Amino acid sequence: MTATTRRPALDRLLSPRSIAMVGASNSPTRIGGTVFANLLRAFPGDVYPINPKDEVVQNRPAFRTVSELPEAVDMAVIAVPAPAVVGVVAECAARGIGGATVITSGFAEAGPEGRALQDRLTEVSRETGIRVVGPNCIGYMNAHEGVMANFMMTVDQPLPQPGPVALVSQSGGFGSYITNKAVLAGLRLGWFVSTGNEADVNVANVLRHLVERPEVGVLLSFVETLRDPEVFVETACRAAELDKPLVLLKAGRSEEAARAAMSHTASIVGSAQVLDAVCRQYGVFVASTMEELLDFGTIFQDGRRARGNRVIVMTSSGGAGVLLADEAGQAGLSVPELPKEEQTALAADMPLPFYGSTVNPVDTTAQTTAMPDAYRKVLNRVAASPSADMVAAVTWAGPGPGNDAIVEMYQNTDKPVAILSTAWSEQFQQAGVPTYTDPRRAMAALAALARQSARRPLPPDPARFTADADRVRRVRELIAGTGGETTLLESTGKSILAMYGVPVTREELVTDVDGAVEAAERVGGPVAIKVMSYQLPHKSDVGAIRLGLRGPDAVRAGYREMLAEVARRAPDAVVEGVLVQQMAPARLELTCGLQRDPVFGPMVALGLGGVLVEVLSEAVLLRPPFDADTARAALGELLGGRLVTGRRGLSEAEQQAAAQVMAGLGVLALELDEVTEVDVNPLRVADGVVLAADALIVVDHG
Amino acid sequence: MTATTRRPALDRLLSPRSIAMVGASNSPTRIGGTVFANLLRAFPGDVYPINPKDEVVQNRPAFRTVSELPEAVDMAVIAVPAPAVVGVVAECAARGIGGATVITSGFAEAGPEGRALQDRLTEVSRETGIRVVGPNCIGYMNAHEGVMANFMMTVDQPLPQPGPVALVSQSGGFGSYITNKAVLAGLRLGWFVSTGNEADVNVANVLRHLVERPEVGVLLSFVETLRDPEVFVETACRAAELDKPLVLLKAGRSEEAARAAMSHTASIVGSAQVLDAVCRQYGVFVASTMEELLDFGTIFQDGRRARGNRVIVMTSSGGAGVLLADEAGQAGLSVPELPKEEQTALAADMPLPFYGSTVNPVDTTAQTTAMPDAYRKVLNRVAASPSADMVAAVTWAGPGPGNDAIVEMYQNTDKPVAILSTAWSEQFQQAGVPTYTDPRRAMAALAALARQSARRPLPPDPARFTADADRVRRVRELIAGTGGETTLLESTGKSILAMYGVPVTREELVTDVDGAVEAAERVGGPVAIKVMSYQLPHKSDVGAIRLGLRGPDAVRAGYREMLAEVARRAPDAVVEGVLVQQMAPARLELTCGLQRDPVFGPMVALGLGGVLVEVLSEAVLLRPPFDADTARAALGELLGGRLVTGRRGLSEAEQQAAAQVMAGLGVLALELDEVTEVDVNPLRVADGVVLAADALIVVDHG
Repeated sequence: MTATTRRPALDRLLSPRSIAMVGASNSPTRIGGTVFANLLRAFPGDVYPINPKDEVVQNRPAFRTVSELPEAVDMAVIAVPAPAVVGVVAECAARGIGGATVITSGFAEAGPEGRALQDRLTEVSRETGIRVVGPNCIGYMNAHEGVMANFMMTVDQPLPQPGPVALVSQSGGFGSYITNKAVLAGLRLGWFVSTGNEADVNVANVLRHLVERPEVGVLLSFVETLRDPEVFVETACRAAELDKPLVLLKAGRSEEAARAAMSHTASIVGSAQVLDAVCRQYGVFVASTMEELLDFGTIFQDGRRARGNRVIVMTSSGGAGVLLADEAGQAGLSVPELPKEEQTALAADMPLPFYGSTVNPVDTTAQTTAMPDAYRKVLNRVAASPSADMVAAVTWAGPGPGNDAIVEMYQNTDKPVAILSTAWSEQFQQAGVPTYTDPRRAMAALAALARQSARRPLPPDPARFTADADRVRRVRELIAGTGGETTLLESTGKSILAMYGVPVTREELVTDVDGAVEAAERVGGPVAIKVMSYQLPHKSDVGAIRLGLRGPDAVRAGYREMLAEVARRAPDAVVEGVLVQQMAPARLELTCGLQRDPVFGPMVALGLGGVLVEVLSEAVLLRPPFDADTARAALGELLGGRLVTGRRGLSEAEQQAAAQVMAGLGVLALELDEVTEVDVNPLRVADGVVLAADALIVVDHG
Repeated sequence: MTATTRRPALDRLLSPRSIAMVGASNSPTRIGGTVFANLLRAFPGDVYPINPKDEVVQNRPAFRTVSELPEAVDMAVIAVPAPAVVGVVAECAARGIGGATVITSGFAEAGPEGRALQDRLTEVSRETGIRVVGPNCIGYMNAHEGVMANFMMTVDQPLPQPGPVALVSQSGGFGSYITNKAVLAGLRLGWFVSTGNEADVNVANVLRHLVERPEVGVLLSFVETLRDPEVFVETACRAAELDKPLVLLKAGRSEEAARAAMSHTASIVGSAQVLDAVCRQYGVFVASTMEELLDFGTIFQDGRRARGNRVIVMTSSGGAGVLLADEAGQAGLSVPELPKEEQTALAADMPLPFYGSTVNPVDTTAQTTAMPDAYRKVLNRVAASPSADMVAAVTWAGPGPGNDAIVEMYQNTDKPVAILSTAWSEQFQQAGVPTYTDPRRAMAALAALARQSARRPLPPDPARFTADADRVRRVRELIAGTGGETTLLESTGKSILAMYGVPVTREELVTDVDGAVEAAERVGGPVAIKVMSYQLPHKSDVGAIRLGLRGPDAVRAGYREMLAEVARRAPDAVVEGVLVQQMAPARLELTCGLQRDPVFGPMVALGLGGVLVEVLSEAVLLRPPFDADTARAALGELLGGRLVTGRRGLSEAEQQAAAQVMAGLGVLALELDEVTEVDVNPLRVADGVVLAADALIVVDHG
């Protein structure tokens, strides 16, 4: 075994020191010709063509088969017809090759036969340890090490200038498309990997690999199906630790949103929402458009960070300045009025008479374009302002002293800069000045940068979570006592919730009318009584509930009437008991639930409850483990922040209590795999108190 | 008086047949030099320089003063120092000149002295009838008639190709900025007018003028302050009648949103929301970003209309296709699966083996770029599909047979087309092919076009509104009976609402306990009782309300307890009576209100009520007059449509009833100027019935 083969196979695949290409061709119009020509462009190591017919391919002596190769290369590019691919990959594995990049189409995307071929490819990879990118991909580019193993560009197109940005895309065509756009937008791509059908390596794996590489500073990704969510989350955590921004653009959102609702809570939590929530929780940026993916890459590629969220805006057009300030506000940034002494200093540099503004936006008016020195002075003073953490400026595309001054200012400051320009400008691209063609896009990028600069601590490490074995034992005893019922009684559910710190209504389970009267006295105040029966999950449908009973007579009468009505309307229901429960006051009703997402596993949701739950369909979601502080911060995002800032919104104490409920459900989710669903609805909120007034727990007895 | 002077002054100002320029200069770096050079570029009529020192300006014999001009020109451009402007404009008026374009700065934007100068300018315009564009503007361009009365470009820049798009901007700098962008984006501008400080002519006036001009097909506008809202609404109605899209970009939204709340309802209705609502009601598009303003102009400039909202997407990148389909769905468009026979026909044109898709998006895969004939065939078939009303296609910028095929397809079809391209392309610009660089932007533009193509009938003409004189008399008697109180009693308010068709709770006003008991019997069921007192607008604060009283004993006891509590807690309150009211059931609570917006006048709002009103802060707004159908359509926009589509949302009957409440308040607003505010909160909704359970009416006795 040589030193080379000791490297992990994925590293050999993506950073090869020698390459072979099966299906290398002399024809420039064939993919096998284009890829091989690209391989030869910048790679410093050996590149071996494999071709059973031609003895020489593009001036290199060709080998007939993989077995005949003079060395166990690190990576093989494969562009042979689909039916031959599996055999070739197996041959590569046998020859000791680390990885294969399979360009060929005609696999899972092409129906059942292709699907079968792909399954065999996956098997070969699993069995032999050879790592496979593709099939049905456009290949990859590792510009730092000269690997152009792709047909996303032809040999006559200039190689992109390598930079800190890595782009990983499932879709090859889209990857090529966006790479083209990225180069036009001045994004310096060092890596582009298309994973195609992901028979082995997927987007999450590649991101996980690239996040550790020192030359990679920014990770952009485009996915249709996110595989290996655990790896994705781990990558997000590493990216956060290393302060490398990770941006995700997801296709197929509207389809996923239409996914059939599995239960009540699932109806408000489509999986696009789950993905968004997971990204928010782990600090991943979700790009809302293709251009935003590039816009974020552009603001992040120079590695600058902001000390706060104050922007100073410099413009010669009042209208553009106002739009930038508006968008700054809407993006959560501030455009603070400059202190008097700074304004005086700025005014001293302005031409007279001066009809602009020194307040912020600093408006130098159209006059200044004719006075480049004044513009330059003011611009540098603006960038140096101690009142601002970031700089935005407006300009017209095209050469001129104004744009020279902008480049100079950008180079003189270490603050993040975003330029609003009428169009891309080659001058700015070469100087690396982040440029945007719309005020909203400029401010969205600065806001993302401010968020990256002010990261909250990461969520707790799932590996460190330890279950409370005693509590788990006690809960399992309760569950075992249900005799195999999958939906627990409300009374059992609340007992379990209480063990996880969820405040529940004061209540007692009784079995006769005298017991109810006594329990009502202990519970105090007006009470609700509810029939507990596994056959009656929807109590109000059959009159199995009475509300607001005050005093022994009312309790006694209510109890008898209720049981009589249930006996009449649901004669087959077995009554396990009657729950006598405190009437919880409510200014607001919330709902809190636990669902198990097919991709990301347990997710705890909190939203508005009561009848509005379906009308509003909005919830915050967290993936356990998380602490109560994280839950509290998440509450602040509900209803655009109004749930906590609104005049009748949640008070401090209520926020804390609601967060505690979420945290409790999070722990429950991790301790009890058999609990498939929890629905606390309503969670009644009043006077600083939050109380679970009903609870539904569904278990899978396995 | 000549034929020329008989034209309206604004028409003479914007379509002059002869022009003078006061302050025309020989210096190319001065504004007076730039503007005069621009005037000479394309104008076919006479252009006279006026300069007190130079005898010749840019090869034209100069005149020393306006009075010395050989004819009463239609328009004078004025670029002299601010203190001289008013005198020059007065001189122009005296000489019979129709209008002045005042470039000079140093007016209202420059402090109190400038403000005074501007007021005098406004006065001169009002007194003499001369129309004034500016001051502090960049001038205007009427490309169709060769008028370049501006300094937005220098003489070395090529003149834009005249087209159907008109851009009106308050901000000159921004207008110039966006004009520059527009030309880069391939927008064919025929008109650009900057109105500056609007001493006389404002954006609304110019739009009103331009909407009637036959060469104008699309109106784009940018405003900071919208003056003459009535003219704006009238323009919107004319634009709708003439099927000319009107798009508005508004600056200063976040400032306005922060405007102090004037009362309860005002807190949920900032004036940016009012503007948005008025635009929606009258069919004006509100651009959410600067680029969207241009994107909409681009989709509208070829004048095509769509027969429906079905889009067919053609792509060679599966990922880009999915993104386009996603965005189509989110924009309210459909991407229908093609029928089998169409798919078969498409497949026959595809190269084999074919691993793409014929479903829609039609994905021809990367293969097709190497097969231009197949691409061309498929593309034309896609455009001709009877299953689609609009066409979207993905391409790479740059010359090639694929883009030639796109141009050909665009020219062969009369369907609206939007191309997603990596960048602007000169080829597409010259051919007029609408091009977008982001999937969301492409679909937002097509969705706007679909909306324009399927316009609802216009709102009723305010001029045709006739008040019900008898009802007005009866209401005024009620109001007069309050003895000058500005906030009416709930009982009075509900009587008035009932006259406008608003369903109110069954109720009676009584003055003693026996009356209350009898009234409760007539009202039926459990009742609420409420103390009516002008001093107690917030009844629950002092115990002036009892809920859910059932039977004579409960009513009697509640009545006594309530009056005793009020006597104790609000000893100075004068009790006018006690309202005995039906308890209205509620599945949902709404709120409906009338406010008078300082800009647009009466606005009727409807939103979620109860405690959530502040938490949610969302409402639909309509400007009277409007009919119940318009109100119903507006309800459909609340909460992203979920208020009417949600499982527990409003039923048909409830929607109709809620719309009726809005319509009633609309009529009330028009009939009763003295009513400054109405707040119906809550409007209780259950079982197909909507009932006003409380009502606050504020009047201004004048």
